[in-house]
Amino acid sequence: MKLTAGCELQFDVQDDTPLMLMLRPRSGAGQWIISETYEMEPEVPVTEFTDLYGNLCQRLIAPTGKFRIRTQAVVQTDDLIATDPGAPLTIVQDLPDDVLHFLLPSRYCPSDYLVISNEAARIVAGVAPGYDQAEAIRAWINTNIRYEYGTSDSTTSGADTLYNKVGVCRDFTHLGISLCRSLSIPARMVVGYLHELKPMDLHAWFEAYINGIWYTFDATQTEPKGNRITVAYGRDAADVAFMTQFGPMTMNTMEVWVDADETVAT
Amino acid sequence: MKLTAGCELQFDVQDDTPLMLMLRPRSGAGQWIISETYEMEPEVPVTEFTDLYGNLCQRLIAPTGKFRIRTQAVVQTDDLIATDPGAPLTIVQDLPDDVLHFLLPSRYCPSDYLVISNEAARIVAGVAPGYDQAEAIRAWINTNIRYEYGTSDSTTSGADTLYNKVGVCRDFTHLGISLCRSLSIPARMVVGYLHELKPMDLHAWFEAYINGIWYTFDATQTEPKGNRITVAYGRDAADVAFMTQFGPMTMNTMEVWVDADETVAT
Amino acid sequence: MKLTAGCELQFDVQDDTPLMLMLRPRSGAGQWIISETYEMEPEVPVTEFTDLYGNLCQRLIAPTGKFRIRTQAVVQTDDLIATDPGAPLTIVQDLPDDVLHFLLPSRYCPSDYLVISNEAARIVAGVAPGYDQAEAIRAWINTNIRYEYGTSDSTTSGADTLYNKVGVCRDFTHLGISLCRSLSIPARMVVGYLHELKPMDLHAWFEAYINGIWYTFDATQTEPKGNRITVAYGRDAADVAFMTQFGPMTMNTMEVWVDADETVAT
Amino acid sequence: MKLTAGCELQFDVQDDTPLMLMLRPRSGAGQWIISETYEMEPEVPVTEFTDLYGNLCQRLIAPTGKFRIRTQAVVQTDDLIATDPGAPLTIVQDLPDDVLHFLLPSRYCPSDYLVISNEAARIVAGVAPGYDQAEAIRAWINTNIRYEYGTSDSTTSGADTLYNKVGVCRDFTHLGISLCRSLSIPARMVVGYLHELKPMDLHAWFEAYINGIWYTFDATQTEPKGNRITVAYGRDAADVAFMTQFGPMTMNTMEVWVDADETVAT
Repeated sequence: MKLTAGCELQFDVQDDTPLMLMLRPRSGAGQWIISETYEMEPEVPVTEFTDLYGNLCQRLIAPTGKFRIRTQAVVQTDDLIATDPGAPLTIVQDLPDDVLHFLLPSRYCPSDYLVISNEAARIVAGVAPGYDQAEAIRAWINTNIRYEYGTSDSTTSGADTLYNKVGVCRDFTHLGISLCRSLSIPARMVVGYLHELKPMDLHAWFEAYINGIWYTFDATQTEPKGNRITVAYGRDAADVAFMTQFGPMTMNTMEVWVDADETVAT
Repeated sequence: MKLTAGCELQFDVQDDTPLMLMLRPRSGAGQWIISETYEMEPEVPVTEFTDLYGNLCQRLIAPTGKFRIRTQAVVQTDDLIATDPGAPLTIVQDLPDDVLHFLLPSRYCPSDYLVISNEAARIVAGVAPGYDQAEAIRAWINTNIRYEYGTSDSTTSGADTLYNKVGVCRDFTHLGISLCRSLSIPARMVVGYLHELKPMDLHAWFEAYINGIWYTFDATQTEPKGNRITVAYGRDAADVAFMTQFGPMTMNTMEVWVDADETVAT
Repeated sequence: MKLTAGCELQFDVQDDTPLMLMLRPRSGAGQWIISETYEMEPEVPVTEFTDLYGNLCQRLIAPTGKFRIRTQAVVQTDDLIATDPGAPLTIVQDLPDDVLHFLLPSRYCPSDYLVISNEAARIVAGVAPGYDQAEAIRAWINTNIRYEYGTSDSTTSGADTLYNKVGVCRDFTHLGISLCRSLSIPARMVVGYLHELKPMDLHAWFEAYINGIWYTFDATQTEPKGNRITVAYGRDAADVAFMTQFGPMTMNTMEVWVDADETVAT
Repeated sequence: MKLTAGCELQFDVQDDTPLMLMLRPRSGAGQWIISETYEMEPEVPVTEFTDLYGNLCQRLIAPTGKFRIRTQAVVQTDDLIATDPGAPLTIVQDLPDDVLHFLLPSRYCPSDYLVISNEAARIVAGVAPGYDQAEAIRAWINTNIRYEYGTSDSTTSGADTLYNKVGVCRDFTHLGISLCRSLSIPARMVVGYLHELKPMDLHAWFEAYINGIWYTFDATQTEPKGNRITVAYGRDAADVAFMTQFGPMTMNTMEVWVDADETVAT
């Protein structure tokens, strides 16, 4: 499906503030960027670099006063995500070198905690190693963790969420990743857009590496949904914050849209 | 200056033909991509990857029949290119590791030929090592090599051009790079757009690494000109062909435009 | 100084166990590998790859039964580590792109916790931003955290250590990194060898990026000490474990040596 | 087989001369470095970096006077190289992104010359696309190009060798690569050691990417021979010179050895 997705951020900047942003999707597996726009008002100098994972990162200094960023992309996406019930676990010695990284614990995915590996063992009891385990984890989170805004903050980890039993897409994702890694299933976080997400917002989900492929899992959804746009991926939210600010500024509004009709004016 | 630059390629494809393209500029030093569009007709699956130099490369199979590619970008560019007469040579032992690569001879820049180093020595006789040498080379080419379409082909090297004394922007660039490298000045090829180029076309120029900075040199121009958009860079044209085809297809038309007014419809 | 450093690990392997190791130092800033040896008994197939940070990682399957790994390197090291009291903070907008990564919180360095930033603020009250802050943090840890084996484990974070007030070199390092990052000083973990460390063991310390340079800080020491061999570096211990095992095996003995006389037989 | 391979270079240095060297093999596919030594006399500061292909490169300034470099490695190698008659060509659209690079023409492998592609077409007439073509090229070179020292120099390309019909291992390799690439078979140069090479010297051969695997081809040999140690690989000799000097120095002697008995003293 051809999607037009974008967001607009409006700020009051109390003092010139360095910003790092990840708001520009790249063409890649399952998505092709037909067009995109990245605007600021007022216009300021921006530099862009590619991080360790290949994500595009923008650096700028938000000027004191009102500041606005608006990005939009028209993207060809896949209508369906791949699923493969029964796909076997890729055992550690067969994992590609660059995938091993996603087995390690990270800031928000402390897969080394005993409480995580114990819960994972309970969830996948009797389930065949591989895809079905990751899916069991996804389904368990969807059933057992309540979705509610305002119940977590930027320091909340997957272990916290397991204890709190409540969170948002970021927390669902961190928990899913933590549980997968504790079973030696490589897992990573994706942030981006999802068509028909309700309520509309920037979204997060996870991918698990099984039988040679990165499969998509979204614990906030009750069934597999395609039409996703990846903006960035990494080990967890520490790697893929859409915005990191280094000074005093306030985001007043953030609007996000994903439309199936690309005729929206760019 | 805010430029709208683009190109449209029209093909007759005799049989399904794999293509590799480099037609998507990236934000980077001196340029910020405000918006861009990359369209094909008919639409076909495309993948994109980043090459060794960080350039974006698109891969697709051109389908049999009529095929059209159209790309356009609105880009904030610098009105002036930096110049620094008198800037000293960075001696080899002080070059950054990743710059050494651009001292080596390459397909179209055989800087190891004696004829190249001899000519370079003549051109820079009495000139201070560094920026002034690169500028002397640029000026010498501009004066001594005649610009004429159809006088060279895809196998022509900088050494050929030194002998022929005629060529196009690609040949001017290869010769400039060859001469610089023979003096231990790292040099690389850039392909992209230049505002007010006459006649308008995709363009090529070179950069030389001097005193810690990559400076722009364009041997086709009589004076320094800014408002350039880099699409790709590499050792020479082998690295940065805007299109590489692996099969039978014919390009019927190629239109290129660079406008200073970004209100052109995307 | 020319150091001969090495270690020997002896295992009882209950079942064939995949291992990832980081036991091969590379030549780099401040160290030159004159010779090295990497032996296993029994000999098994090994592959080696370079991780995201450039560290060399070895992968193998430890065979059931007795297994032994022995590595040794003769390395030219610097007798002194650089120090620069008064060196100013590099402000965020001036940090190189690839250094920004080391400002982010990580598994064992939760620099985003309020308790960390509050403690950091107290420690550096009245201290000039930059080198002196990092040194104040190092000295504070050396004074206020007790060094004791067996008081922490593989899940212990810098925040835990701040609370516990006790730990080993790994914990001292994680706390130092956490505190530095909370002040927008990029910091990373180094594991390796230190001459005359008492008791001798594999060691860990941190580096902070100040005024364009990565400076060495070791909170376990009372004064600056050189003659270090870096084996690996990364965001924290999750990135630079010298050994990660994926199955049942027991390390029986681990011997580590660092000698100033390279005449030790290799 | 466990090989001990090394070389010793002796120089008269007329003036302090920057050197770039590639004399340290890395563990990788088919080879495991058990131990290695890298010595200089007199000892000078050296830095090491990894180039675009992952090769280790050493930089130093050779001091005026007598200078000596001696490197040696004990390496576990494969006794046999893989062969796969009948393996089909990997068509361009199925090549991995990072392999495409090795289809492009390069300094010493002008695969874009018509004389090259015409000769390639003659050599492989009637041969099935893929492994058998690369092997036909290798055999043709072995039969039709005469091996003789002193018949080529550092500017000689594969096209020159096709014309001259004489050369050394480097020239055989460049010609093989040129011919393969002209048939859309990715090919790259390897430099290293070969056990029982006669006369003993640093050696060069090529690899061709066929059916998903890089196969080894050595046009200087009449039959497949294993027990090779790769020191570096790249597009051609411009990428993988074991030594590049930037100033006046003379190599007096170069000794190379490859022994099957690792008991040689390191």
